[in-house]
Amino acid sequence: MKIYETTGFPNPLRVRIALAEKGATNKVIFVPVDVMGGEHRTSAFKAKNPDATVPLLELDDGTCIAHCNAITEYLDGIFDGPSLTGTSSKERAVIAMMNIRAESGLMNAVGAYFHHATQGLGPDLETWQCPDWGSKQKEVAQLTMTYLDGVLTESDFVAGNRFTVADITAYAGLAFAEFAKVEIPENLRALRAWRDRVAARPSING
Amino acid sequence: MKIYETTGFPNPLRVRIALAEKGATNKVIFVPVDVMGGEHRTSAFKAKNPDATVPLLELDDGTCIAHCNAITEYLDGIFDGPSLTGTSSKERAVIAMMNIRAESGLMNAVGAYFHHATQGLGPDLETWQCPDWGSKQKEVAQLTMTYLDGVLTESDFVAGNRFTVADITAYAGLAFAEFAKVEIPENLRALRAWRDRVAARPSING
Ligand SMILES: N[C@@H](CCC(=O)N[C@@H](CS)C(=O)NCC(=O)O)C(=O)O
Ligand SMILES: N[C@@H](CCC(=O)N[C@@H](CS)C(=O)NCC(=O)O)C(=O)O
Repeated sequence: MKIYETTGFPNPLRVRIALAEKGATNKVIFVPVDVMGGEHRTSAFKAKNPDATVPLLELDDGTCIAHCNAITEYLDGIFDGPSLTGTSSKERAVIAMMNIRAESGLMNAVGAYFHHATQGLGPDLETWQCPDWGSKQKEVAQLTMTYLDGVLTESDFVAGNRFTVADITAYAGLAFAEFAKVEIPENLRALRAWRDRVAARPSING
Repeated sequence: MKIYETTGFPNPLRVRIALAEKGATNKVIFVPVDVMGGEHRTSAFKAKNPDATVPLLELDDGTCIAHCNAITEYLDGIFDGPSLTGTSSKERAVIAMMNIRAESGLMNAVGAYFHHATQGLGPDLETWQCPDWGSKQKEVAQLTMTYLDGVLTESDFVAGNRFTVADITAYAGLAFAEFAKVEIPENLRALRAWRDRVAARPSING
């Protein structure tokens, strides 16, 4: 199978970490996409993913799976290793909920700030910006950091006491926040300590 | 288990349909939440769901699951009947992807239009509006309708040849669009025909 992606971008990072956690990085062919050059908006790429985003998983039968959560669902299902999305119905539901909170409240909120309230990817790619929306989403991202800090005061990981896809999403969200200069509010000690622990995992540090 | 919800609202509708498809509507206690009166923003409700949204599932052990996709994951796992979220890894991934497209491109885009570019739930609840963002999201919703029409020209349902959670999300998204006066573009015949077929299902019409 192939993964179309762009090195150094925050959403592709999510899938890279998931693959490394499953010990499956070498089971995949990575195909670079020149996002800065607009390759993801060509009709050739949009035939595979009409959303014009990376990462994109292409199976050997030609099926294309876009969006990190859908890609992770697949990778988690076919590769061995500790489950990232959960096993019991209750665990799956809790992980899904916390992953949604990390995605919409942090990763996507930082993305909205970056694309709408900063120069983002530059004028060729940012063809419609809404600065008020972007600024508000920065506030949302920082409120979500505060929320996650509270969660991490009570449990070791974002969705309970083991590492899951919700940690991957939150970690990539914080990496994006650092890049986009969305500061972590003062005194979020549990969030910072969790980030350092996650950063030291072999899937990230290795 | 309990589901906190508000009758007639589009996200609670998604969970109502999922339950009915699983034949499990009578396995749940529904607790009405007065969204128009702001009950979902009280500290009592936010202790259960800090996102301050309905629907919310509360299990008998007190675990609270917010967000339709997480709730549906749970309900689909514990009740019998045809799977809404898929069984093989590939099927699960395709359904997840199409469900994300229906949610972010249609349901949430209509929601953004409604809350930001119309009076939404009224001045007491709409404390921060961004009309430009809302108007743009109306365009996104209509582009997604056109995309889904293309999909439904090739297959019977949104994520392949059987009814899944992606159909539920898209159907509730169209219902919300109708309420918010986001018109379906002309000539989307496959989308309209699919909507009529879905509306006739016992889980909706029954
Ligand atoms: N929800 C998508 C988000 C993907 C996304 O936005 N990727 C960025 C790179 S991190 C992208 O493709 N941006 C292209 C653009 O902004 O034009 C996912 O989960 O994969
Ligand atoms: N992503 C959430 C969305 C839930 C949502 O936005 N629900 C609406 C009712 S349809 C709500 O609670 N609105 C309250 C408000 O706007 O203050 C889900 O999947 O449940």
